[in-house]
Amino acid sequence: MTIMYSLDLLGSFAFALSGAILAIRKNMDLFGIFVLAFVTAIGGGTTRDLLLGDTPVFILTEPIYIYISIIASLLAFLFYRALIRINSVILLADALGLGTFVCIGVSKALAADVSFAGAVILGLITAVVGGIIRDLLANEIPAVLMRDFYAITCIGGGIIYVLLHNHGIPQNFVMLSSAGFVILLRVLAIRFNWCLVRVHSNTTGSL
Amino acid sequence: MTIMYSLDLLGSFAFALSGAILAIRKNMDLFGIFVLAFVTAIGGGTTRDLLLGDTPVFILTEPIYIYISIIASLLAFLFYRALIRINSVILLADALGLGTFVCIGVSKALAADVSFAGAVILGLITAVVGGIIRDLLANEIPAVLMRDFYAITCIGGGIIYVLLHNHGIPQNFVMLSSAGFVILLRVLAIRFNWCLVRVHSNTTGSL
Amino acid sequence: MTIMYSLDLLGSFAFALSGAILAIRKNMDLFGIFVLAFVTAIGGGTTRDLLLGDTPVFILTEPIYIYISIIASLLAFLFYRALIRINSVILLADALGLGTFVCIGVSKALAADVSFAGAVILGLITAVVGGIIRDLLANEIPAVLMRDFYAITCIGGGIIYVLLHNHGIPQNFVMLSSAGFVILLRVLAIRFNWCLVRVHSNTTGSL
Repeated sequence: MTIMYSLDLLGSFAFALSGAILAIRKNMDLFGIFVLAFVTAIGGGTTRDLLLGDTPVFILTEPIYIYISIIASLLAFLFYRALIRINSVILLADALGLGTFVCIGVSKALAADVSFAGAVILGLITAVVGGIIRDLLANEIPAVLMRDFYAITCIGGGIIYVLLHNHGIPQNFVMLSSAGFVILLRVLAIRFNWCLVRVHSNTTGSL
Repeated sequence: MTIMYSLDLLGSFAFALSGAILAIRKNMDLFGIFVLAFVTAIGGGTTRDLLLGDTPVFILTEPIYIYISIIASLLAFLFYRALIRINSVILLADALGLGTFVCIGVSKALAADVSFAGAVILGLITAVVGGIIRDLLANEIPAVLMRDFYAITCIGGGIIYVLLHNHGIPQNFVMLSSAGFVILLRVLAIRFNWCLVRVHSNTTGSL
Repeated sequence: MTIMYSLDLLGSFAFALSGAILAIRKNMDLFGIFVLAFVTAIGGGTTRDLLLGDTPVFILTEPIYIYISIIASLLAFLFYRALIRINSVILLADALGLGTFVCIGVSKALAADVSFAGAVILGLITAVVGGIIRDLLANEIPAVLMRDFYAITCIGGGIIYVLLHNHGIPQNFVMLSSAGFVILLRVLAIRFNWCLVRVHSNTTGSL
């Protein structure tokens, strides 16, 4: 679980960066940048916990996600141009986060005795709702609704998790396979330009 | 309750169709179509359960709503033009769903000991929040905010439910009266073009 | 607590007015006006209670917030022009509400054993989420994301609350200091035009 936790923090940081970058593009001020960073990083996990009834939600008890969002906001505010140049590094961190978020969502769902389809949906929600709220706040149609492949990858990772889990495979291997599937597909999609150059945005321009 | 459950599924299906149709109009891909179908079908009920604290919410434990949304998405994707032509059939299913959703919302509220006005509001939320989330995701001002009559009908149905319930009328009759009121007013509104030709949309064009 | 409760109702009323006024600007009908008034008044407190798991949320058990929103909607509908003219009175009521909302949010968070940063965030959420939902429903980028000072004030008030509380200061004095700080800064900002003429709107024009 320590590896999962590290990946979770890294992924949250990458998600926060994508929110901060969109906020800067939209000419938001420092507080707007923080809000977009924060909701992108924690929107999926918070929605997951609300749907499961796991309250107080983690953002209130684990302040590290708030600090991660503050750091990402300041970095994006100060080094916007440099960040855009290391686009592929951010995309990789984003991919690691995506795979991890799917796994955590499905794993929490299974622990709460939900249905097969419900667990897959909760993994998907954990992975994509943060980006959806980010885009709504920036007054754009959520990018994920326009890009099938991003979400289908998360659904695939969730199905792999539930299938392996139901066959009694040890949890470490289940997580590795599911997250690995999502991360590998994302990296391939980025490497070979499968339908997207940009992380989390439907505006024109790089990243 | 079996009749209510059938109407609930039928209404969810009609709501899902309205979401899928809006997604197609907005040039979304298959995943975007599914998301809009799904949130329209389950957004109201999920918000209702969250506000009551009834978790894990039903979408995680009852996968049928996920399957209904998948079927509605595929149907809309494959037979968009044919669906537009049977507009009035969809509008009727939508009306049946609306009446049912109001009843289920008010009934759950009363079981949770909320106030009179709170119960009416929860019936309204169950009926309209799915459509509001659908319109937000499509980057439109929610249609229901521009169309008084749709929402007023739900409020009327909710008030009838609480009044009859508080006078000790048997529940079957209460539900029949309340849902019947909403369905009848909706059907009349559609038949005589009371302020709306379209189910759930503020774009121009039929449906 | 009676003073806090009075300020809470007054603030909810001012927030409801700001929602109703935006709805009228957006040419919404009476129901749309009510919805925007209602979500602005209760959106922050409802999100706070959901995140804490304090359900059924207060709007279902305390109908007074529904009645306040109905009255604010009718007043805005009937006396729109007059309300615009007493802009500064509404701004003052809004400032009183803002300070009170921050205090109630932080106070509930501390009672639920959340982290320092979590408590400050919950105070902020209680104060600003209603306005954010209002702006989303009106299809605008939330005004608070474009106006640093409004939110920074809430964060400052929240930090003061937690710091004084952790040093064992009596709660009445803590609340007075925290709410007083927010209210004073808001009043000064309005008086000296620190970055905003408008209460809750990013459209051009007064209020």
